[in-house]
Amino acid sequence: MRIIDEMGAKAKAASRTLAVAGEKKNDALKAIAKALIENQDKIIEANKLDLENGEKNGLSAALIDRLRLDEGRIKGVADGVLEVAALPDPIGTVISGSTRPNGMEIRRVRVPLGVIGIIFESRPNVTVDAAVLCLKSGNACILRGGKEAINSNKCLAYIMQDAIESAGLDKNCVQLIEDTTRQSSVELMELTEYLDVLIPRGGKGLIRAVVENAKVPVIETGAGNCHVFVDESADIDMAANIIYNAKTSRPSVCNAIETILVHENIAEKALPVIKARLDEKNVELRGCEKTRAILGDSVKPADESDWETEYGDYILAVKVVSSIDEAMAHIAKYSTGHSECIVTKDFKNAKIFTSTVDSAAVYVNVSTRFTDGGMFGLGAEIGISTQKLHTRGPMGLNELTSVKFIIEGDGQVR
Amino acid sequence: MRIIDEMGAKAKAASRTLAVAGEKKNDALKAIAKALIENQDKIIEANKLDLENGEKNGLSAALIDRLRLDEGRIKGVADGVLEVAALPDPIGTVISGSTRPNGMEIRRVRVPLGVIGIIFESRPNVTVDAAVLCLKSGNACILRGGKEAINSNKCLAYIMQDAIESAGLDKNCVQLIEDTTRQSSVELMELTEYLDVLIPRGGKGLIRAVVENAKVPVIETGAGNCHVFVDESADIDMAANIIYNAKTSRPSVCNAIETILVHENIAEKALPVIKARLDEKNVELRGCEKTRAILGDSVKPADESDWETEYGDYILAVKVVSSIDEAMAHIAKYSTGHSECIVTKDFKNAKIFTSTVDSAAVYVNVSTRFTDGGMFGLGAEIGISTQKLHTRGPMGLNELTSVKFIIEGDGQVR
Repeated sequence: MRIIDEMGAKAKAASRTLAVAGEKKNDALKAIAKALIENQDKIIEANKLDLENGEKNGLSAALIDRLRLDEGRIKGVADGVLEVAALPDPIGTVISGSTRPNGMEIRRVRVPLGVIGIIFESRPNVTVDAAVLCLKSGNACILRGGKEAINSNKCLAYIMQDAIESAGLDKNCVQLIEDTTRQSSVELMELTEYLDVLIPRGGKGLIRAVVENAKVPVIETGAGNCHVFVDESADIDMAANIIYNAKTSRPSVCNAIETILVHENIAEKALPVIKARLDEKNVELRGCEKTRAILGDSVKPADESDWETEYGDYILAVKVVSSIDEAMAHIAKYSTGHSECIVTKDFKNAKIFTSTVDSAAVYVNVSTRFTDGGMFGLGAEIGISTQKLHTRGPMGLNELTSVKFIIEGDGQVR
Repeated sequence: MRIIDEMGAKAKAASRTLAVAGEKKNDALKAIAKALIENQDKIIEANKLDLENGEKNGLSAALIDRLRLDEGRIKGVADGVLEVAALPDPIGTVISGSTRPNGMEIRRVRVPLGVIGIIFESRPNVTVDAAVLCLKSGNACILRGGKEAINSNKCLAYIMQDAIESAGLDKNCVQLIEDTTRQSSVELMELTEYLDVLIPRGGKGLIRAVVENAKVPVIETGAGNCHVFVDESADIDMAANIIYNAKTSRPSVCNAIETILVHENIAEKALPVIKARLDEKNVELRGCEKTRAILGDSVKPADESDWETEYGDYILAVKVVSSIDEAMAHIAKYSTGHSECIVTKDFKNAKIFTSTVDSAAVYVNVSTRFTDGGMFGLGAEIGISTQKLHTRGPMGLNELTSVKFIIEGDGQVR
């Protein structure tokens, strides 16, 4: 038997106890939060190994920073665990119900998905974040983190397992795959016997690889080629402000924008104002011919690849369009279906945009940066689904559940 | 460009118009119902070709019967279409919403999935059933039916396309793959660029093949190894009645039972009563040693394979168990997660059973034969999901939708 099959079987068994664990789940979460603080020296020591290896292997300063765990960050992670403990338990919620004409009572109830696999990259805090969201929603999880963080991840997983056990639950509710070769991640993607769903968290390459190779059901997350369309009736200052925020407040995240589309009737007035705001952060613009005719040659010419690219950086593509239809057609062609915004004063255009644009989050006069479980009031987030099956948009605890029908009666037959 | 890519692109384009088609969808459904009746001679003629080929190829009488379309059945299909037209439109339903502290208004709204692929076997009525459920829920569909029904399916698809066009919608909302080679079904399973979900409808072999080979998201349907557990406190007549109904009212369907588990404290009294009822329909019993000790050697001995088998026939496996825990462990090991029932007078055992057993439908004192969209009040059904992702149990119109978030504000930035 392969190690992964043993882990799968243990996870399945643990998930059955977890499905009916009720308040013990919160006991386990509180124990985890406490143990993280109590063991912070151990965590920092393990993390130091990863940081040293990272420097030896020439990781960029940005990646080293994502890897790092210090007292403040561990405190942040522990606080996050307590916040999840304080959220309402989704399991057992009655979603709908009725009494049928024959007297049988039907209700549709939230139940856990079962066993969730998570494949993620270098940030070790994901190890805890993902595990506690799975735990709270009654799911056992099998975690497969990146090799850069393996020492930190192992330390965090052991601490969580001990804490879970101390709360009277099966420690195999949370398991970490310690083998970080490509093979182990392929095995997880093919673990159809035990895994109910696999969620990749990380860059485009990782997500593509999982979607293309997994045999288990996958929730695709994260890729965000997001747009702002400045309609001809837009408040120009509002448009510039939203664009500035959506591009520069955190360019590396998936809800940041990559392309703006500007109506030709407002372009001459709006583009200079928008550019002036973006110049504050030295954002590089890449424009279509009409854009460059207005803003001049300091704007680089954009080509097809610019419309397709999620820069994740201080770069923004700009296109002048002749109508809302052209804007929506551009979005339909190039968007990854994450978040799009129209800035407009026109009620009808707002309605056309929100009903036609087919993305997880469609905004009117609001920055796309709000696409986030916390910001949407879901309490927590394990990722942002950009697929349509199961769920779309930020995934909170409810999105980590399935349903079952319970039917009670007194001998009804058909 | 392959034919399947052309069909995919046409379906995607059609799905965008269908997403905002509103009442026109019902116009199209009514036109389809009318056209089916008006063209019934044509349909019956095309169907005759399939029946003749079927007889030539030695199809069983049961399969020939499933293939057959006559006036009565066409009327039944057309009436079904009108029933779907009369159901509420799921698209645009606001599932939840709130105003966030910063004043932005969020709502989560039902939207179509987009393009749905359906792979099915010999029953030509599925061609219409599946197409109209997709149409009503705003989804374009690509249908791939079995070769036995290809002449009927082509005729039905043309009639539907004409009717859809007459209602002012894009006829490519419904497309049929006319190539019935294995290759065409593999191509559909790999059509990741255009397909949002693939639903197989048919026997175990078909479903397995789709789940294992598809690269697009799949909703697994149908396999039903269902159980009734007769608890020690059961009303014996009620138990016998439920078992009789769940086994014999229609043995070939997925919500029929295959194994009963009987508590040892009631087995001696209950088994003869149950057997007497089942004898009315000559149901073959295959029992464990304890069962045979009570009922005698006329009951064949059951082996491991009997616990695993979905007979789909007048055969029932019988096992005596020493506790509800043993019953639930047996179900956890062998069930396909479709429908299970406990017959009991004991309140606590009823609650333990419904909260622990991990199946789409869990019954107390009700026949498993009710697991059905119509019986559950969903109005219609495209299949019964036995997976946990997206949905579980009977799938009605709501289950053919996704969601999007719409956020409206007045310049909020983060």
